[in-house]
Amino acid sequence: MDGSAGAPGSFPRTAAVVGLGLIGGSLALRLRAAGVRVLGVDLDPGALDLAAQRGAIDAGSVSLDRVAEADLVIVATPLDQVAATVIAAVRWTHRGAVLTDVGSVKAPIIAAVHAALPESVQFVGGHPMAGNEGQGMAAADAALLDGRPFILTPTARTAPEAVAAMQAVIARLGMRPVLLDPVAHDELVAQVSHLPYLVSLALHRAVAADARAIGGPAHAEMTRIARSPAKMWTAICRANRDAILRALARYQAELARLRQGIEAGTPDDVIGGEGA
Amino acid sequence: MDGSAGAPGSFPRTAAVVGLGLIGGSLALRLRAAGVRVLGVDLDPGALDLAAQRGAIDAGSVSLDRVAEADLVIVATPLDQVAATVIAAVRWTHRGAVLTDVGSVKAPIIAAVHAALPESVQFVGGHPMAGNEGQGMAAADAALLDGRPFILTPTARTAPEAVAAMQAVIARLGMRPVLLDPVAHDELVAQVSHLPYLVSLALHRAVAADARAIGGPAHAEMTRIARSPAKMWTAICRANRDAILRALARYQAELARLRQGIEAGTPDDVIGGEGA
Repeated sequence: MDGSAGAPGSFPRTAAVVGLGLIGGSLALRLRAAGVRVLGVDLDPGALDLAAQRGAIDAGSVSLDRVAEADLVIVATPLDQVAATVIAAVRWTHRGAVLTDVGSVKAPIIAAVHAALPESVQFVGGHPMAGNEGQGMAAADAALLDGRPFILTPTARTAPEAVAAMQAVIARLGMRPVLLDPVAHDELVAQVSHLPYLVSLALHRAVAADARAIGGPAHAEMTRIARSPAKMWTAICRANRDAILRALARYQAELARLRQGIEAGTPDDVIGGEGA
Repeated sequence: MDGSAGAPGSFPRTAAVVGLGLIGGSLALRLRAAGVRVLGVDLDPGALDLAAQRGAIDAGSVSLDRVAEADLVIVATPLDQVAATVIAAVRWTHRGAVLTDVGSVKAPIIAAVHAALPESVQFVGGHPMAGNEGQGMAAADAALLDGRPFILTPTARTAPEAVAAMQAVIARLGMRPVLLDPVAHDELVAQVSHLPYLVSLALHRAVAADARAIGGPAHAEMTRIARSPAKMWTAICRANRDAILRALARYQAELARLRQGIEAGTPDDVIGGEGA
């Protein structure tokens, strides 16, 4: 490891954020505000220009080799490109650099990265539990990160120094580091993030347009996330299929139980008690 | 009708709010702030004291006969007591007084009221589309009403003057009057209010406690309404059973379709397209 990685104040000196979308852009804004030199890498020059205009990056590049200057590389590409991007980035990162990502599903990414890279490469799977229904650098907002959990999923081959360095970075981001096993992460996130999206999308689709017009605050709130980018969610549903299906099965069973009580005219038997 | 009922500025001179809970209390606060004399009726002296302390009422009574002084009576009791309370109140209300309610289900209430009372009684079914997960006078907040729809469900026997008077009151409350047929109301509200509660409750129950701890904003938002009083919702599920079951069936079908696509490994076929 680069000795600096252990010292919260000085790590990272330079961070590269690969993928300046909602989350990458928000992390770049917050890192730069914290005094870190931030390099942006994005295939879209427009995203780089906007990131520079918004003060999220010191310099930008459409080419991944720019990560060579960074002691922290945050891969914030679409989920289905995270593993390949991490693997490609390592061709340029210097020895001792720490790599992390922000993907919503961890086990498949970590398996792919471990299969392709030597143990000496310090990749720590990451997942900031933050976001909204927006999309792209234009929707990036450092405030989304405030006080939110940033999950890290180290494995047996992750150097403790790399984990400690990431925990210090997360604190500088104003977020809460949480350590989880990758498989446990995918199971829990299926329940609190992936399932709620499907629930929201189904609710949006089940409600007639004329009903939406008189919708109460609960309906608006519960269908908000259904507007988030479908492309992101299809990738998540492929990558975390089994855990999502388990969570969905539990949810459908709870719903069926509620339905039976209402049908039978005995809602008291299924609503209330512990209620929520 | 009392001639004053037609004149927005002067109607109501005195309003009686029967049931000082979250909605009744919020309406009382806003009416009194608008210069209306407000009488509170509640079986709980504690609710009357709190309403007086909070400036929601000019005077309070545990006895329904106090509605005799009012030209507008708003029945905001629990749903299963609305019809009986309206019918009982009419023993004291003066000729020309307008009665309304805030119940979440309209057709059964209107049928019961019409069956029991002469056509001369001016009852206009009402439903302010406002609220939160709170309960009681302590949670009352006039701001909950701002810009929200207040649905009115007049029928063939409702005097146009009573509807006009209610529309003027709703405007003074800072809300938007919306006219709907009672049956159409119950069908639409089953979709945008009753279904979201069941969806939220099932989601809360399907998510393990350890998962909730890392829950994202979407999860918190989508399980908020599950914390609202179970007793209120069991009454709604009894009163609007058929419309709720229709909405629930549409929702379960959407969810099953999403599940099939995820199971088949082709989420793109079921997510996106029109997405949300």
